[in-house]
Amino acid sequence: MKSYFDGIEKIRYEGPESSNPLAFKYYDADRVVLGKRMEDQLRFAACYWHNFCWNGGDPFGGDTFMRPWHHMASEMDAALLKADVAFEFFSKLGAPFYCFHDRDVAPEGATPRESVDNLRRIVDVLAKKQEETGMKLLWGTANMFSHRRFMSGASTNPDPEIFAMAALQVKEAMDATLKLGGANYVMWGGREGYETLINTDMKAELEQLGRFLTMAVDYKHKIGLKGPILIEPKPREPSKHQYDFDTATVYGFLKKYGLENEVKMNIEANHATLAGHSFEHEIATANALGIFGSIDMNRGDAQCGWDTDQFPNSIPDTTLAMYYILQGGGFTTGGVNFDAKVRRQSIDPVDLFYGHIGAMDVTARALLIAEKMINDGKFAQVTKDRYAGWQGEFGQKIMTGKLGLDAVAQHVIDRNVDVLPRSGRQELTENLLNSYI
Amino acid sequence: MKSYFDGIEKIRYEGPESSNPLAFKYYDADRVVLGKRMEDQLRFAACYWHNFCWNGGDPFGGDTFMRPWHHMASEMDAALLKADVAFEFFSKLGAPFYCFHDRDVAPEGATPRESVDNLRRIVDVLAKKQEETGMKLLWGTANMFSHRRFMSGASTNPDPEIFAMAALQVKEAMDATLKLGGANYVMWGGREGYETLINTDMKAELEQLGRFLTMAVDYKHKIGLKGPILIEPKPREPSKHQYDFDTATVYGFLKKYGLENEVKMNIEANHATLAGHSFEHEIATANALGIFGSIDMNRGDAQCGWDTDQFPNSIPDTTLAMYYILQGGGFTTGGVNFDAKVRRQSIDPVDLFYGHIGAMDVTARALLIAEKMINDGKFAQVTKDRYAGWQGEFGQKIMTGKLGLDAVAQHVIDRNVDVLPRSGRQELTENLLNSYI
Amino acid sequence: MKSYFDGIEKIRYEGPESSNPLAFKYYDADRVVLGKRMEDQLRFAACYWHNFCWNGGDPFGGDTFMRPWHHMASEMDAALLKADVAFEFFSKLGAPFYCFHDRDVAPEGATPRESVDNLRRIVDVLAKKQEETGMKLLWGTANMFSHRRFMSGASTNPDPEIFAMAALQVKEAMDATLKLGGANYVMWGGREGYETLINTDMKAELEQLGRFLTMAVDYKHKIGLKGPILIEPKPREPSKHQYDFDTATVYGFLKKYGLENEVKMNIEANHATLAGHSFEHEIATANALGIFGSIDMNRGDAQCGWDTDQFPNSIPDTTLAMYYILQGGGFTTGGVNFDAKVRRQSIDPVDLFYGHIGAMDVTARALLIAEKMINDGKFAQVTKDRYAGWQGEFGQKIMTGKLGLDAVAQHVIDRNVDVLPRSGRQELTENLLNSYI
Amino acid sequence: MKSYFDGIEKIRYEGPESSNPLAFKYYDADRVVLGKRMEDQLRFAACYWHNFCWNGGDPFGGDTFMRPWHHMASEMDAALLKADVAFEFFSKLGAPFYCFHDRDVAPEGATPRESVDNLRRIVDVLAKKQEETGMKLLWGTANMFSHRRFMSGASTNPDPEIFAMAALQVKEAMDATLKLGGANYVMWGGREGYETLINTDMKAELEQLGRFLTMAVDYKHKIGLKGPILIEPKPREPSKHQYDFDTATVYGFLKKYGLENEVKMNIEANHATLAGHSFEHEIATANALGIFGSIDMNRGDAQCGWDTDQFPNSIPDTTLAMYYILQGGGFTTGGVNFDAKVRRQSIDPVDLFYGHIGAMDVTARALLIAEKMINDGKFAQVTKDRYAGWQGEFGQKIMTGKLGLDAVAQHVIDRNVDVLPRSGRQELTENLLNSYI
Repeated sequence: MKSYFDGIEKIRYEGPESSNPLAFKYYDADRVVLGKRMEDQLRFAACYWHNFCWNGGDPFGGDTFMRPWHHMASEMDAALLKADVAFEFFSKLGAPFYCFHDRDVAPEGATPRESVDNLRRIVDVLAKKQEETGMKLLWGTANMFSHRRFMSGASTNPDPEIFAMAALQVKEAMDATLKLGGANYVMWGGREGYETLINTDMKAELEQLGRFLTMAVDYKHKIGLKGPILIEPKPREPSKHQYDFDTATVYGFLKKYGLENEVKMNIEANHATLAGHSFEHEIATANALGIFGSIDMNRGDAQCGWDTDQFPNSIPDTTLAMYYILQGGGFTTGGVNFDAKVRRQSIDPVDLFYGHIGAMDVTARALLIAEKMINDGKFAQVTKDRYAGWQGEFGQKIMTGKLGLDAVAQHVIDRNVDVLPRSGRQELTENLLNSYI
Repeated sequence: MKSYFDGIEKIRYEGPESSNPLAFKYYDADRVVLGKRMEDQLRFAACYWHNFCWNGGDPFGGDTFMRPWHHMASEMDAALLKADVAFEFFSKLGAPFYCFHDRDVAPEGATPRESVDNLRRIVDVLAKKQEETGMKLLWGTANMFSHRRFMSGASTNPDPEIFAMAALQVKEAMDATLKLGGANYVMWGGREGYETLINTDMKAELEQLGRFLTMAVDYKHKIGLKGPILIEPKPREPSKHQYDFDTATVYGFLKKYGLENEVKMNIEANHATLAGHSFEHEIATANALGIFGSIDMNRGDAQCGWDTDQFPNSIPDTTLAMYYILQGGGFTTGGVNFDAKVRRQSIDPVDLFYGHIGAMDVTARALLIAEKMINDGKFAQVTKDRYAGWQGEFGQKIMTGKLGLDAVAQHVIDRNVDVLPRSGRQELTENLLNSYI
Repeated sequence: MKSYFDGIEKIRYEGPESSNPLAFKYYDADRVVLGKRMEDQLRFAACYWHNFCWNGGDPFGGDTFMRPWHHMASEMDAALLKADVAFEFFSKLGAPFYCFHDRDVAPEGATPRESVDNLRRIVDVLAKKQEETGMKLLWGTANMFSHRRFMSGASTNPDPEIFAMAALQVKEAMDATLKLGGANYVMWGGREGYETLINTDMKAELEQLGRFLTMAVDYKHKIGLKGPILIEPKPREPSKHQYDFDTATVYGFLKKYGLENEVKMNIEANHATLAGHSFEHEIATANALGIFGSIDMNRGDAQCGWDTDQFPNSIPDTTLAMYYILQGGGFTTGGVNFDAKVRRQSIDPVDLFYGHIGAMDVTARALLIAEKMINDGKFAQVTKDRYAGWQGEFGQKIMTGKLGLDAVAQHVIDRNVDVLPRSGRQELTENLLNSYI
Repeated sequence: MKSYFDGIEKIRYEGPESSNPLAFKYYDADRVVLGKRMEDQLRFAACYWHNFCWNGGDPFGGDTFMRPWHHMASEMDAALLKADVAFEFFSKLGAPFYCFHDRDVAPEGATPRESVDNLRRIVDVLAKKQEETGMKLLWGTANMFSHRRFMSGASTNPDPEIFAMAALQVKEAMDATLKLGGANYVMWGGREGYETLINTDMKAELEQLGRFLTMAVDYKHKIGLKGPILIEPKPREPSKHQYDFDTATVYGFLKKYGLENEVKMNIEANHATLAGHSFEHEIATANALGIFGSIDMNRGDAQCGWDTDQFPNSIPDTTLAMYYILQGGGFTTGGVNFDAKVRRQSIDPVDLFYGHIGAMDVTARALLIAEKMINDGKFAQVTKDRYAGWQGEFGQKIMTGKLGLDAVAQHVIDRNVDVLPRSGRQELTENLLNSYI
């Protein structure tokens, strides 16, 4: 096979009037938005796993995609073919970044040493492909949830030898990330949790998780990996409960181990909704706590209680996400990774392009809307006006600790009048939001 | 009216064979369980609000209970009658504790001073009633969510004057709790959150909330209130999002403001399930983080997405709750408060007794089952055995920080064999659990 | 009080560029869309209950709106003032229709006769106001869920005398609807269900519900009420389970009682999502079953498990709803009723306008987008193409019953080749959908 | 391999005091309960798919069980070994029935004919094994969801040739069920629904589904298969929406195609909860509509939004299920099939026994509790008393159609008094229920 995506050219910007399904209508990499090129604001990444490792299977049915590399005798040959196809896709799509797990790119070996060798060999290939194509690595990570040895957790496993197996993978994946110039390193603890509390020592497992993260942070400094470690929270699935439930939970965990200045968040839309939050809530929370890092952009299905990892397509929802990211200062090392997969019925290679093009366009469109919101300033002003009272003398005395509970209570007694509430103006603000779209 | 519960005698223990619906079948206050009288292990409390303030209304319909005190001209007269009825109920039921919000017991006045006076006057009445009946106060709290002035939050309100109104209520409620010998002081932030993020300054609100809690802790020490402040988490309802989402979230918040040794948790079953957790998960989490305090016992409806506050009736669910509480050392200042209400169709006064008797019996039964589990030790042994490897040399070296990530990784490379996972034995453990019931 | 909405003029269309929050940007009543005036396509209605009966209370707090008519001594005087205010609002808003429950407009009396008299008296007032303002009634309905006598159901009540009380209300409300020229009559069974199965005879209750509906249909014909009876499904809340769970459930119920040609659906967005469906799913299901009637437009909150009844503000979601309504032929007797309420923090009278203006604009915008989709035809063509095979000879033989299971099986055996699936093109179709917005 | 479950003897009843984890404590096949042997009341079945086809994989990780037959070169050899192991398990467990899908027992072939041949060959093997062991078939079914050709549905596929492929499978599976003396035939439509409405012709798909079911019913009669066809509803997963959403939905569907006397329900606990119902609700609904058939017993996880298919372990929940089944007359052709799987961490063969033993015991225990409830009659009396009024003259006149809406309304006007509601006594009834446990 010379080309897996034969007949598909590099995707180009053609503007909103284009009806070419293989062109961008809104994503115009060089257009300057709020002082930066769109490409630099959005820092789009495509991922290895959903696009090139998944075969279309779900719990009720198997392979629908029939990718050639899933049906080859040699796993290393398959890995090499997969790398060719992946970089063909990345290059033609035009997102500047990609992301991968160690086991996405190179197969597990028969022994730990063989697994390490497999990964190192493929990392050399990836390095070369990056050079050839100009692609960059947004982040690397280690898959510590697919192999059966991790069925009861990786760092939270009841067996320290399995903790050690996980440590080896993270060390190697961090080395690989360093070598490939990765901008961040991600940890998602899909099995760092429990299936049933009744056989679980939660306190011990939390300590193990804390120790593991501390070791990873230390190692990062030791090797000089520059970008932050990012934790990606998820409340459940595959585990019944995962310790990195959501942003607020992870914050408490980081504080417990003194890591709140070392580690940031990689927030996924669908994980947010599974945790009972909106995507923008998780972004705003990370902003408020000073731990925002990067996002895994996708969408869930409001009727389905599992991670559907669909491509984002809601203009208003994506607008709010982009707005809060920009309010928090925008991306530094992070970016917009599409942790999204085409549906298992979307079996043609070209469907991978449709999925990403639509998602990049909806995100670009959201960015342009957010730009208007920020430039005109009316939207932020609503909130600023509401809290203006806290800038007054009494508010400041409270917040700076000058008044205790009884002093503040006495103020009320002295004043002895009720306080009338003011309208929250939610509908007016919602209308204002729609006026930007 | 001489007696609201005319014809109902003090509820007595009659044993499992009794078919008297107004007798306890399992709750036998003086029976010694794990070294303490059942009454002292369980520390049951009945609440003021659901039993004596609620009129049976829901968002789609009004008063069904037709309690006389809800239809009186004078609010203070109604408060006095309500106190008579409440203490008649408490005394006849035989739970040793009760709990209340300031506004449950005394009406809001026309001015702050009048509100303070109303409360103080009724607190004197309550003190006298405690003396007469031997009832004790498990905890007091302030209602900072029902009045319209708190529609946009109390301490997190955009207006510092409303923050101050809340401070007055908390100061007075803490004074009342001290006076009445309350064992704890509770804070539930039903409107400390937001209805829509788009008009909310989350960072500012979190700072206000932190400041408020700090002030309350300082005041507690100042007046010499002995028991802990307890925070009761809830993820949403009435607000779309509440900042005290769950135990892990509150822990992070406490760490941020350095209050993790001052404040503990009051965990409610139905709030746990609304947050996407089991009740025992929240208890186990609080145990693991060292912040367990007390519980609000009730149950939700697995099909309803709101707080139904039903009386607990599941023997297995309650067993797990009691087991984990005992595993964490049992109650000290805390206890089992029934934050539960009879259904709005249960309109007869006697229904209040049926609700509490069933709930106290199911909890007592759960305690007796948990006693068996602890005495025989097999259930805890399952978990202990699973993690035994961590007590070995390698595990200890990891946990005590003697080995870094690369050293642990090297251990795997040197060993160079895969690690075989062991069965989690979930079904066997579940069968074991059922064998105690 | 001369005018409740003093200073607010009749809302006018000013076009998308207007920044006047009290003007329409998209709703242009006379603009012709798909052959009809926008007003006639959308048939907007405002409701009495959320706007003029609700006081801002929720289960955790009381009145925030402080409407004057909620604080008057005479209930009939309050009803008259409420009618003045309601028609001032309706007229200024410019939606052509309104909707009401009997108890929204007139108070319950001390006896059944007094209740009937109250309603009849106010209906005369409403008739006059309709004449004066040109307002029309989209539908009437009876409130059989707020009064305590209905706490265990209306027609499904264990007591036939309460069934009879409900019958009286429905008869009178149908008479009122006839008198006011109402285009439809609606039934929502908020307490036609159960709170707990263990005290419920489901079979008996379903028979009662079937009998009641049959009686209502017969009476409709008897008095010559022209429009259809509409059932509004909801899965739960206030009841734990409601028999009219969703459209498919109601269809089965109608078939059981032979009423599927007499009764149609009034579909509410937020009720659909509580039932685990999208709004468009319920519309498409009603279309497929031939029972689509009207809609209650609003939105829920994806994180809240109860009926939030917010004003719609999502352009893409509303577009899909409008598209499927138009695909089904558009409204005949039905229309777009806003069963939506301003948030309880939106306490100013003007907030009622903001809520409706935003909702009418988003719906009008959705209609214009749906018009493009229908005129260009590409969106419908995707589906048509997918199923083209069924128009062939083999497909037609199957569907017309010419081939039995064994004959079709034999066809496969004779052909003896596997069938290759085709891509479902979901992402491409989603991108196409966004291209219309 | 001579025996897969080496060292495990036939499971025997040892009574509640036994601590042997491989013995029944409550399931005593020959004990007579309500006039029938326990075995004949419960009609337990173990299933092929979860026990012998699943490898422990989930969407985030692969094979944990490492069953030998999943790692053999020849699929037919694997099928033969699997049959040996399955019947060893069935025999040792002592449930009298088993269930299977066609593709569970025999592999898909390269062509339709080869698939048919594979199945027929294995059915001969199963027939012989049934004879040797005395095992009986509760029901057969066809897997029309795992193969990629069914990714867009089987009978609801956009391609009639795929409909035909499904028809072949159902014909052969019905033939196999007949040959093996199966007591019922089941249809579960996992992909009979849609992934997105925007590429779906719902009306066409419903017609196809109706046609397919009609063809299956006709064929059943033609070949003389005696037991009913059972439909197993599920609301979603794998599809976003499945047409057989729940019992009430299926009833409407059956009515539409005139099949309500031909087809009954196979109700699964976890599917009920995913649809927003309790298990007992679905059973009671099927009873009320006259379409109850059989159950798939398992449990879901209240915190997880997907089908976890765990073994039942809740005594109270299972009690309610058994009680309503007995209230409906108990099983005729149906039975209790455990559509449940050990957790993926339960990797030892013996775990399959632990799962089933616990589940059979909890169900037997529930049966014994339900026996007490029925024998003492108090529980049913609660409901009977509540509805007693409907047996009076007025109630009967309403239900027999003697009074129309206006006549019933006139009755109220003539009587002219309000009706006082009576307490629903939910808490008392819940306490009564617990008294049986």
